[in-house]
Amino acid sequence: MSQLETAMAILLKTFDKYSGAEGNKDTLSKAELKTMIEKELPSLLKASKNPEDCDKLMKALDHNGDSEVDFNEFIVLVSALTCACHNRCPKK
Amino acid sequence: MSQLETAMAILLKTFDKYSGAEGNKDTLSKAELKTMIEKELPSLLKASKNPEDCDKLMKALDHNGDSEVDFNEFIVLVSALTCACHNRCPKK
Repeated sequence: MSQLETAMAILLKTFDKYSGAEGNKDTLSKAELKTMIEKELPSLLKASKNPEDCDKLMKALDHNGDSEVDFNEFIVLVSALTCACHNRCPKK
Repeated sequence: MSQLETAMAILLKTFDKYSGAEGNKDTLSKAELKTMIEKELPSLLKASKNPEDCDKLMKALDHNGDSEVDFNEFIVLVSALTCACHNRCPKK
C-alpha cells in the first residue's frame, strides 16, 4: 500500500473506531465525536482551552441537527485542520 | 502521535514529496500530479483504463487554469476518493 492509500485507510479506520461505539455505526454521535477529539486531537483540545469550543465544533459539523456526524462531515473537519496546519507551517 | 494526527502528517508529507520535485514547491505541476497518481494511487489508474482520465482529473482539480494544484485542491481529491471508497465498502 502506498503512503497516500495508508493515510486514506487510517482515516476510514479512525472514523469506524469511534462511530462503532454506540447507536448508528455509520455516524459519530456527540459523545463519540467528543471521545474522538479527546483521543485523536488532544493538542487541538489543549490549544482551545475553552470547553465550549468542542460543543461549537459539534454544532458546526452537524448540518442537519440530528446530533450525528457522518464520514463526509468528518472528512471536512480533517481537511480543514490539515489545511490550517499546512498554512501555519508551509516550509520546513 | 495519534492515528488521526499520523494520517494528517502523511497527507502533508505525501504532498510535499511530489510538489517539491520542480518549479513552485507549494503546488503540484501537471507532471508532478501525474507522478503522484502513478506512485500513490496505482489501483486508481489501473481501474480507469482510459489514459485520458488522468488529464481530465488534472483539469478538474486545476481551478484557475495555471496547471498547478495546491494543497487545498489535493485534499479535495483525497476527500472525494476516501468518501467514494467508504460508500463502496460501508461495512466490513
